[in-house]
Amino acid sequence: MSQLLNNVTTELAKLPGVGRRTALRLALHILRSDILDADLLSDAIGNFRHNVKNCVKCNNISDDSLCPICSSNSRNKELICVVENVGDLISIEQSGQYNGLYHVLGGVISPLDGIAPSDLKIDLLETHIQTNNAKEVILALPTSVEGETTMFYISRKINKYNLTISAISRGIGFGDDIEYADSLTISHALRNRQAF
Amino acid sequence: MSQLLNNVTTELAKLPGVGRRTALRLALHILRSDILDADLLSDAIGNFRHNVKNCVKCNNISDDSLCPICSSNSRNKELICVVENVGDLISIEQSGQYNGLYHVLGGVISPLDGIAPSDLKIDLLETHIQTNNAKEVILALPTSVEGETTMFYISRKINKYNLTISAISRGIGFGDDIEYADSLTISHALRNRQAF
Repeated sequence: MSQLLNNVTTELAKLPGVGRRTALRLALHILRSDILDADLLSDAIGNFRHNVKNCVKCNNISDDSLCPICSSNSRNKELICVVENVGDLISIEQSGQYNGLYHVLGGVISPLDGIAPSDLKIDLLETHIQTNNAKEVILALPTSVEGETTMFYISRKINKYNLTISAISRGIGFGDDIEYADSLTISHALRNRQAF
Repeated sequence: MSQLLNNVTTELAKLPGVGRRTALRLALHILRSDILDADLLSDAIGNFRHNVKNCVKCNNISDDSLCPICSSNSRNKELICVVENVGDLISIEQSGQYNGLYHVLGGVISPLDGIAPSDLKIDLLETHIQTNNAKEVILALPTSVEGETTMFYISRKINKYNLTISAISRGIGFGDDIEYADSLTISHALRNRQAF
């Protein structure tokens, strides 16, 4: 077997959801594709990992020191949505329903995984709140024990600023089957029912 | 949105079976992973596409001018298995049931796709047969019209050499890709090859 093929297959197989068989198929596709496409892919990966920065205000990934959202003039800068990671931020952006700023924590408090509050961008969140004179912070963290702990910790920490602290509503997602929803979600969804 | 993230997502989404959503997930994984892993992946892709050669004897992909199979001393050099592409070769190798050499055509005759016999390594196959004084050529081409046409063309072309021409048995379902067939089917098809 070609060592070059073996290398690229091994590296591709490290990606999530890519088994060795799929990695081989991707490698053979790269072999057949234009050499320019292979260069674009290779360079895009290297450039992305090496040159992507974190926004100095909200910790979102960014090409410059300020991310496009923080540097935009059309966003409501008094509203900050706290998310665990960039993937969550992108999903909320794609909903097209939010016009405030974000704050990316970079994780949630998890003693088992050795993630303490000091490992997260919570101090930066306080700076962010003060700089922008924020009126509301929306906590959009996971519904796990770690997520709840983190929301509780943050709410205590930022309580001293004169602002509203809210959390995104929990319930059964659109298109989700009630039949397969867990009891906690169902009881929460029932308790928080709203006038129709 | 970060342009660097956008670039890597766009390039990853060009891979087969990778949609934009999956590409984004892969990109965010690369972001979280060690910078060394990102470099290994990026370099492996570039090195593979730039430096992989074709074996001068059998047209298999190779790191050197002769592929490991052609340069091995433990293979039966009088037996040549003709395949469409490298993916097929790898699948047959993985069955562990074949000890001869290969010849990679690089496609099959397909007037609709503008692939003429001269676009395939058929002249090289004749050289290969003569150099190795081959006793048997096994045709392991797809069960499509193009595959059958190519087998017929090749059998006419190499008929003048004193050798047996066989075709792998129809253990492989019509329309199934050799590349994706399981090892048992492949070894069965090899064992039950019949005079063409």
